Amino acid sequence: MSKLSLKHFSVSFFECINAKKEGRSLSRQEMFSLARAVSQDAWPDYQIAALLMAFRLKGLDSKETLYLTQAMAHYSEQLNGGPKNSFTVDKHSTGGVGDGVSLVLAPLAASLGLSVPMMSGRSLGLTGGTLDKLDAIPGFKSRIPKAQIERQVKLLGLALFGQTEKMAPVDRKLYALRDAVAAVDAIPLVISSIISKKLTEGLDGLVFDVKFGRGAIFETRHQARALAQGLVSTARACSLKSQAVITRMDEPLGRAIGNAPEVLQAWSILKPTSQQRRHWTSCGDFMEVALELAYRMLKMAGLVKTRPESNGLACEALSSGKAWDVFVDVLRAQGVRPHVARELDRHLPSPKRTVVVRAPSGGVVRFVDARHVALATRHLRVLRRRQEDQVDLSGGLWLAKKTGDEVAKGEELARLVGSLATPQEFFWATQEVGKAFDIGRGRVRPKPLIVEVM
Amino acid sequence: MSKLSLKHFSVSFFECINAKKEGRSLSRQEMFSLARAVSQDAWPDYQIAALLMAFRLKGLDSKETLYLTQAMAHYSEQLNGGPKNSFTVDKHSTGGVGDGVSLVLAPLAASLGLSVPMMSGRSLGLTGGTLDKLDAIPGFKSRIPKAQIERQVKLLGLALFGQTEKMAPVDRKLYALRDAVAAVDAIPLVISSIISKKLTEGLDGLVFDVKFGRGAIFETRHQARALAQGLVSTARACSLKSQAVITRMDEPLGRAIGNAPEVLQAWSILKPTSQQRRHWTSCGDFMEVALELAYRMLKMAGLVKTRPESNGLACEALSSGKAWDVFVDVLRAQGVRPHVARELDRHLPSPKRTVVVRAPSGGVVRFVDARHVALATRHLRVLRRRQEDQVDLSGGLWLAKKTGDEVAKGEELARLVGSLATPQEFFWATQEVGKAFDIGRGRVRPKPLIVEVM
Repeated sequence: MSKLSLKHFSVSFFECINAKKEGRSLSRQEMFSLARAVSQDAWPDYQIAALLMAFRLKGLDSKETLYLTQAMAHYSEQLNGGPKNSFTVDKHSTGGVGDGVSLVLAPLAASLGLSVPMMSGRSLGLTGGTLDKLDAIPGFKSRIPKAQIERQVKLLGLALFGQTEKMAPVDRKLYALRDAVAAVDAIPLVISSIISKKLTEGLDGLVFDVKFGRGAIFETRHQARALAQGLVSTARACSLKSQAVITRMDEPLGRAIGNAPEVLQAWSILKPTSQQRRHWTSCGDFMEVALELAYRMLKMAGLVKTRPESNGLACEALSSGKAWDVFVDVLRAQGVRPHVARELDRHLPSPKRTVVVRAPSGGVVRFVDARHVALATRHLRVLRRRQEDQVDLSGGLWLAKKTGDEVAKGEELARLVGSLATPQEFFWATQEVGKAFDIGRGRVRPKPLIVEVM
Repeated sequence: MSKLSLKHFSVSFFECINAKKEGRSLSRQEMFSLARAVSQDAWPDYQIAALLMAFRLKGLDSKETLYLTQAMAHYSEQLNGGPKNSFTVDKHSTGGVGDGVSLVLAPLAASLGLSVPMMSGRSLGLTGGTLDKLDAIPGFKSRIPKAQIERQVKLLGLALFGQTEKMAPVDRKLYALRDAVAAVDAIPLVISSIISKKLTEGLDGLVFDVKFGRGAIFETRHQARALAQGLVSTARACSLKSQAVITRMDEPLGRAIGNAPEVLQAWSILKPTSQQRRHWTSCGDFMEVALELAYRMLKMAGLVKTRPESNGLACEALSSGKAWDVFVDVLRAQGVRPHVARELDRHLPSPKRTVVVRAPSGGVVRFVDARHVALATRHLRVLRRRQEDQVDLSGGLWLAKKTGDEVAKGEELARLVGSLATPQEFFWATQEVGKAFDIGRGRVRPKPLIVEVM
């Protein structure tokens, strides 16, 4: 870069901070200049950090959010989407406890003819990350080159991967600084971070699962709505078809929470065995979210019109093993040995210790608090406290009882598993699980999971 | 520093940013931790910059401002004040056009028995800096060691110096970052920066000259009042006697604007010659501010009770040459050769070019706009546009006419002098001077200069 252009940046970066500080909106050109400067490491971190803090405190309007999103996507390597006649789509969840829905949804959608380049992340805060879960699969490589991602999406309809070095470098830099200066909670920055990454995938459509409640980033439905609104309108302004499903996340989804446990659960749901439907039933809430998201994707692609039609296709793909076949093929394509891929349930890392938490009294489970369950898994080292923490891939917990279930005194409520946690940490985890379960009397009617679609 | 204490800082710095972002006030302990971390370079610039932006946008309450001020002063080398039986005092001006008052006030105050360790800075924005002015004196050293400053204050009552490496290192770091991220205009940070530096001087009292108007940082009296209020209350909370004089800065003070010109003007006011009183009269506004500030200092020290009493002492010190003697002694102590010090008016850098601006029409000068005069001096390279700019020590301008003066068409209004400016820059400077002068008809009554004392 010439000295002249550096100087140009110099003025504009300082001016941008100053303008934002005074409450002025930044222009499209300014946002692109900023992103370019960040992508070229042309500006010192302290200026970027101060600007991010100004963004956090003064906000960005919808146009600025759009411009920033487009600018961040512009200075990134781009994937070619799927084949021309297919619909390329991805899903983003804001994260929840037990939310391993992607592991089922992605192969299911691909088996129904959608192209799914699924870029995922690592665990954050109290929720797990798909990449950490995939790490539990022996041999699986989530860092694969661009060419392989494109080839896999074309041939198998699915690739499961993490951001490469050249993908969304501006987001990576901004995210690291936001994390260091307590600015991760700026909604416009959340929106631009999510969508700019997805824009690099060459998508036609994008479905959001925006969660609220005890186990989500946002506690209230109101906050989730605001985020969903911003996500959908920004994605649409970027010429993506887009819908957001707002889902309640007060209780853990499904039965498994943790890396290997969630992979095993997804596997059991996908694999066509005589037990398969029992797994669907025991994970009713998990399936409800997965089928709703699949419906939104298929409808967006013009492949179905109604939810029953979509459910029919999905159940057929699951029970026939079509979705499972895609999953196995993708695992093999991404480094897993054939016999491991086909009998994954026998090759996942097994925990060294198991602790059973039992009901202190009989009754009906009235509520399972996702936050306490998440805290329990953090004690079990399933989640990172810091970036550099080692994650226990075998660790997690299995819920034997869910809300509405009857339970006798001394009966199993949950099973804690892990290899890295100390006995003391297991003890803390059991305490949290104890706090999570509310056991009482009378009938319990669970609240609806899917509260709104935007 | 041990790893443990680093970790301790880590948590607290992030927590401080987060707290401030959410609008919580920081505690005394937190402010001291911050200052210590900054003084030890224990924290990355991007976190400090983000915190400064949060300070700028969320504000600091009076307690936080006090704690930050004390913390910044704490992690600094400290000067011993003057002798025990003397009153140690300094003055701070927020800066104005032609405000070389310190050059007269400091030796005057010292000659009246006050101890004055006067720490000054360089030009900033549209106003000059005392250190730049002192640079115009051949041989003068403003960077002198702590021991010399203390000895001079003890023996001569006065030292004129710039911040040393070990003095106020936290302020230096924070100021550089504020400058880089457009956060210099945060009032609480201005207050803590000014007072923390002054606190390291071992003062008993501190007088502020807070200016407002066309040639000041703040245009309105309201803003100046707010700053003055903060300065006085913070200084008093730090156990300093303190007063603020709020002065109008719509028109340049005195006749000289520039480095050598202002030194020459101060010299003419100080030196006991037959011409001395004529200089006092022609610089009536300059003298009014100088005598007001001297009065506030002397009264604070308990040396006078009334303004007439103070004026009497001051005039005696000036006309007897006592103040001039101190000035000459200080110049000699700080590196100026004896014959240069005694005949300074003949040794100041002389300008290579002079351009006279004449009245385009006859009448009465109704107003001289300080802002345009400042812009003119900037064209003449008297002020820095950037930190690294070379300053023309010989450059500046002399006002032949001031508000209320009658002027004939073609008569001299001002004289521009300089050695570095190009003919084009001189032309731009004359244009600005032309804009500065408002010549009309009728009597003009100048507005009061000193509008309030707090």
